[in-house]
Amino acid sequence: MAQDKRVEQITDMEVDFAQWYTDICRKAELVEYASVKGFTILRPYGYAIWENIQNIMDGMFKKTGHVNVAMPVLIPESLLKKEGELVNGFAPEVAWVTMGGSEKLEERLAFRPTSETMFCDHWHSVLHSYRELPMLYNQWCSVIRWEKTTRPFLRSREFWWQEGHTIHETAEEAQKETEQQLNCYADFFENVLAIPVVRGRKTEKEKFAGAEATYTVECMMKDRKSLQGATSHYFGDKFSRAYDVTFTGRDNKLQYPFQTSWGSTTRMIGAVIMTHGDNNGLVLPPQIAPIQVIVLPIAQHKPGVLENAEKLRARLEEAGMRVKLDDSDNSMGWKCAQYEMKGVPLRVECGPRDLEAGQCVLVRRNDSEKITVKLEDLEAAVKEQLGVIHKMMYEKALKNMTDNTYEANTIEEADKLQKEHGGFIKTKWCGELDCELAMKEKAGMSSRCMPLKQSGTKGKCVCCGRECTTDIYWGISY
Amino acid sequence: MAQDKRVEQITDMEVDFAQWYTDICRKAELVEYASVKGFTILRPYGYAIWENIQNIMDGMFKKTGHVNVAMPVLIPESLLKKEGELVNGFAPEVAWVTMGGSEKLEERLAFRPTSETMFCDHWHSVLHSYRELPMLYNQWCSVIRWEKTTRPFLRSREFWWQEGHTIHETAEEAQKETEQQLNCYADFFENVLAIPVVRGRKTEKEKFAGAEATYTVECMMKDRKSLQGATSHYFGDKFSRAYDVTFTGRDNKLQYPFQTSWGSTTRMIGAVIMTHGDNNGLVLPPQIAPIQVIVLPIAQHKPGVLENAEKLRARLEEAGMRVKLDDSDNSMGWKCAQYEMKGVPLRVECGPRDLEAGQCVLVRRNDSEKITVKLEDLEAAVKEQLGVIHKMMYEKALKNMTDNTYEANTIEEADKLQKEHGGFIKTKWCGELDCELAMKEKAGMSSRCMPLKQSGTKGKCVCCGRECTTDIYWGISY
Repeated sequence: MAQDKRVEQITDMEVDFAQWYTDICRKAELVEYASVKGFTILRPYGYAIWENIQNIMDGMFKKTGHVNVAMPVLIPESLLKKEGELVNGFAPEVAWVTMGGSEKLEERLAFRPTSETMFCDHWHSVLHSYRELPMLYNQWCSVIRWEKTTRPFLRSREFWWQEGHTIHETAEEAQKETEQQLNCYADFFENVLAIPVVRGRKTEKEKFAGAEATYTVECMMKDRKSLQGATSHYFGDKFSRAYDVTFTGRDNKLQYPFQTSWGSTTRMIGAVIMTHGDNNGLVLPPQIAPIQVIVLPIAQHKPGVLENAEKLRARLEEAGMRVKLDDSDNSMGWKCAQYEMKGVPLRVECGPRDLEAGQCVLVRRNDSEKITVKLEDLEAAVKEQLGVIHKMMYEKALKNMTDNTYEANTIEEADKLQKEHGGFIKTKWCGELDCELAMKEKAGMSSRCMPLKQSGTKGKCVCCGRECTTDIYWGISY
Repeated sequence: MAQDKRVEQITDMEVDFAQWYTDICRKAELVEYASVKGFTILRPYGYAIWENIQNIMDGMFKKTGHVNVAMPVLIPESLLKKEGELVNGFAPEVAWVTMGGSEKLEERLAFRPTSETMFCDHWHSVLHSYRELPMLYNQWCSVIRWEKTTRPFLRSREFWWQEGHTIHETAEEAQKETEQQLNCYADFFENVLAIPVVRGRKTEKEKFAGAEATYTVECMMKDRKSLQGATSHYFGDKFSRAYDVTFTGRDNKLQYPFQTSWGSTTRMIGAVIMTHGDNNGLVLPPQIAPIQVIVLPIAQHKPGVLENAEKLRARLEEAGMRVKLDDSDNSMGWKCAQYEMKGVPLRVECGPRDLEAGQCVLVRRNDSEKITVKLEDLEAAVKEQLGVIHKMMYEKALKNMTDNTYEANTIEEADKLQKEHGGFIKTKWCGELDCELAMKEKAGMSSRCMPLKQSGTKGKCVCCGRECTTDIYWGISY
């Protein structure tokens, strides 16, 4: 679609992917920088995407019995320090409140970087009996991590997320929860965001501070870099012991519950941009698009055109779609470019000739395909196309991931493949930290995950050459 | 309803209203104290009420064109200080972040006590033309105000709220917005929370720091104290000028937009407790009740009873109600007391004899009235009763407010009425601060509001005796 002069061009993604990304964030009006260094503002269009993500994901959580709560945003330093690994992992990134009004606080308070400690402290005071288990909690909030370098959605000193925290009677139940929530994220990425993922387990080096095991969904962006989509952690009873969370068990003895936590953030919007976007702007998966269908009347001054367009809009709204009619006096070229930039999945065009022929034209954002539709079939056709768009977007992203997953037998080979193609490099790994560090040093790649689907075959560790069975993915990550 | 031994009694509200209130907050599992002084935790049941409030109110805001955004939680001190009145009003209550990781910040950052400054700063950078106006923004978040004494929902160092912020081309439009949002709150209080309100304007002394005018909805609690329900502010172009927010007007000249803000908080849950609660616990307005209907099978071990109860539950869920079946092995007495404590508006009882007779019994929480209903009429009867309950609750609260609004001509009279009856004391007022302060000093009452519905009659100021026309309400407030 030819762009009108009034719509600014964005940087070509092949020329400068990072600048292309930032251009979309700004030009699609998703975020704006704040005058607080490292902080961003989620503007109405960006926040509307986040609201749609929240609604769908929250519904998924509730279906499996999770309930929402709100925990205090500030954590006393002494409470944060009770579990050593967690605080060591997060201490360098914590923002500290030291003054309340004009008084210096006796103990400084951390702006939550994550809330395991608060949940444990709460459970310490309310949990009594195994009858109250499991407690399946979640909260939607913002957290702060004092990052040095920041990028919209990907790395920001404040970001918005959900953090699930659960406690269970047995280790097995907690492990099942960890797995269930990982699968919930995978489901959400694939069936809502149209982003294929690799489900896997993080190495000891890459796992969450204090967790016994961390599971992840890893995605591949259009520049063939990796992005950690969401994580699910199993804690065993480590935090329960540190925070003295106990319950009277079926055997009438005091026991420690087993714990999980799992989180996903506004970073998912960054993943959507970099998985689906193109040189005309954002391309949004239909389920999270604030506007799913934009109705554009052609030659709207001609008799009947505007009334008809409004009728089509009303019908689509009635059918439960998020639809907007743009009857402003901007040019058709400008409007098309504008809604392409904003990633609206489907455009409905209807001019005088269409009206006469009792039809309208649907234009798909993702491939610009035009489909002529009889007016009486509008709702069914639009609904179908939104499904088609999701499927096409997913398959295109899957092809990108599949085509750019390479196998390597040595670090040199892995390095060469990464330099030439990017993507995931799949190898065997002996499990030793030294080999993991060697890959980072010699090929610039971190381990992404050990996929849950293991081949079970024997092979040689990509670094030390020892015989081993573990499959692992490496990549350069956001 | 006789209470089972396992359900703890709460303090009688006639004996100690404050303790009764705290008992409900804890025993109905709405909140729990955190180990951070002055902070509270919203537990699942309390948070579920807040979610229902959010959903309904957010829908109302969106219907009038408002959109949600997310602003940074930290505000640089220099930014906060640009508007003198606001910062003077809030400075004593601000929590300050002074450290990021291990580094001392060059400039300390305020945890937002309110976000006028951040919105203005954002508009300063994004607003260009009158074509972009109005900007009708809202955000759901938590704020911190470092209060000395705290009480669940009513006064807490952190609380959850929505803050609307809008800018407009003309003063008139902004004033209309201020009024519209005040009416939106009044509508929400009366038609959702079943709490009658007096709509009015705050005096200069009681208005929001920095506002040109503050409007309020004032409610009366069961102990006949006043509670400020929600407020709507008009700022003129004061903040626009302070933060250099400008746009090119229709005349092609730079202009300052006119601004409003309006907010309501988790305090509304406190208002619900104190307006509707009784000595058996919480009484929830049906629209915000997490469980609207509780189905309790009587003699559930008898054949067919449990299956039938589950069928009733499923039918009510299908009809769009929030319904739960309690088939636990707790006693009927305990279950009844438990769901009364939690304020569930309607109980459906169904035992073997009811089943035989093809009926069930509805029991209203608010007045314990029992209504026998044919099974085939279940959905319609429940829906009707939920409406009846709302109406009864509203009317009871309205009677409390009307019966306890007294007129007085002198401070002595006002003082006597307040001491004897509590409630609102309605008087004439000359508008002078000295008279307002005298009322506080001599009768312990603050001005609540000058009602929008003014009688227009002449009378004598309750304090100085000067002739004047303004009607004003006084009270002892939360």
